[in-house]
Amino acid sequence: MLIVKVGGGKNINWDYVCRDFAKLSEPAILVHGGNYEMDRVTKELGKEVKTFMSPSGFESRYSDRKTMEIFTMVYCGLVNKKIVAKLRSLGVNAVGLSGIDGGLWEGEKKKAVVAVENGKKKIIRDNYFIKVKKVNSRLLNTLIKAGFVPVITAPGISFEGEISNLDNDRAIAVMAKGLNVKRIVSLFEAPGVLADVKDEGTIINSIPKEGLKEVLKKVEGRMKKKILGAIEAFENGVTEMYLGDGRIKEPIKVVLKGEGTVIK
Amino acid sequence: MLIVKVGGGKNINWDYVCRDFAKLSEPAILVHGGNYEMDRVTKELGKEVKTFMSPSGFESRYSDRKTMEIFTMVYCGLVNKKIVAKLRSLGVNAVGLSGIDGGLWEGEKKKAVVAVENGKKKIIRDNYFIKVKKVNSRLLNTLIKAGFVPVITAPGISFEGEISNLDNDRAIAVMAKGLNVKRIVSLFEAPGVLADVKDEGTIINSIPKEGLKEVLKKVEGRMKKKILGAIEAFENGVTEMYLGDGRIKEPIKVVLKGEGTVIK
Repeated sequence: MLIVKVGGGKNINWDYVCRDFAKLSEPAILVHGGNYEMDRVTKELGKEVKTFMSPSGFESRYSDRKTMEIFTMVYCGLVNKKIVAKLRSLGVNAVGLSGIDGGLWEGEKKKAVVAVENGKKKIIRDNYFIKVKKVNSRLLNTLIKAGFVPVITAPGISFEGEISNLDNDRAIAVMAKGLNVKRIVSLFEAPGVLADVKDEGTIINSIPKEGLKEVLKKVEGRMKKKILGAIEAFENGVTEMYLGDGRIKEPIKVVLKGEGTVIK
Repeated sequence: MLIVKVGGGKNINWDYVCRDFAKLSEPAILVHGGNYEMDRVTKELGKEVKTFMSPSGFESRYSDRKTMEIFTMVYCGLVNKKIVAKLRSLGVNAVGLSGIDGGLWEGEKKKAVVAVENGKKKIIRDNYFIKVKKVNSRLLNTLIKAGFVPVITAPGISFEGEISNLDNDRAIAVMAKGLNVKRIVSLFEAPGVLADVKDEGTIINSIPKEGLKEVLKKVEGRMKKKILGAIEAFENGVTEMYLGDGRIKEPIKVVLKGEGTVIK
């Protein structure tokens, strides 16, 4: 079984992604983001897109209750159902699920997080964010065995039952363990992991899994979370990861041929 | 098995509904609306809530592509996931699904509908609306057998793969046939079917199924669709329907005791 994760950037070509996904000959799960649509709808609703920086340099969406309402609308509604409808029209028996449904992605809500603002530390308490600890593999196995193809999105649910944001690269790492998945494809708006984020010619074609911690120190922005997710995925039994471009034709085929970044 | 359908009105008490649903001792499916939240979010997005009247006097939401995007956000995202999270926190193993997922509620898109505006007839072509013809009972049976509780919402999907609005009272009638359901509970913002829609003291306590067509001529607004759904449900093998108040404590228990409108 294969997990295909697709980021939520503006230039992801969902037509290409879905067409290629529909051609896969092995059972697969699709996990998607929704970042661009989230920002767009938030602004359309007259709200501000708020983020904060952790002391270790990770940028996160500030996920208070109102934000999580919009998040749930955009990710579980708008984005997830569009993908499910598109896949179904291509003959894929897709079923959309969020991490809330069936307790698919559960974890403990962080009671407080530290943010750095203008060099000063600040405690944020109304941030609904979980680190996924428990995956309902039984729901996924039940659906897959019956011939359905799960299309999964954040948010997840806290052990206390609150709809919560999460890092889906890390959720996938936990899910891979529960489902005994060995191979993960991750598509985003770049041809692979880049040595210089501003230069698409600097793809790192191959990373040995032992070298991931070294790469983590060098990469910036969203790529940090992807590498952190990769580290956890390999700790959980994954043996191959393929990272590459979600904007191009046949993106899954291309990345599986090794034309992005391969981690082994 | 029982189908519990809950309308999308402003004053539905979801806390009471979910608490009562969690106490049911038989397998059940929850189907919900989202009308009030749909109108609220549409306005928050600076859009106009548009409806049209059919020649036979049914008022419908004008469901063009942009409306269906908001519809999908509100029903599948905001409303469905809030209910799923609430039920899960009450110990119900809820899984949210739309009519799109797994092709749960499929039908043919009406190519054109006739609307009446200021006494004149008008053809509308960009209205995404299906009459549900096919229900994926296998998805529901697979989930129920594995111990999950489906929480279902519109929209559905056309045979051509387009996300489409539908009448969920009539979708339930088709679903009842597919699942061999004999009893349906329907909760809304009134104590039952009213002889005079403006007077909550005029509950019709009992309607023989043969009398439904007579009642259809008398009722107004949304109740017309509920009665039409009831007629189809009885044609599809349902033997008991309980219609009543979704605003009060223990609403399912109350209505099953016969304190609303019972159709047999």
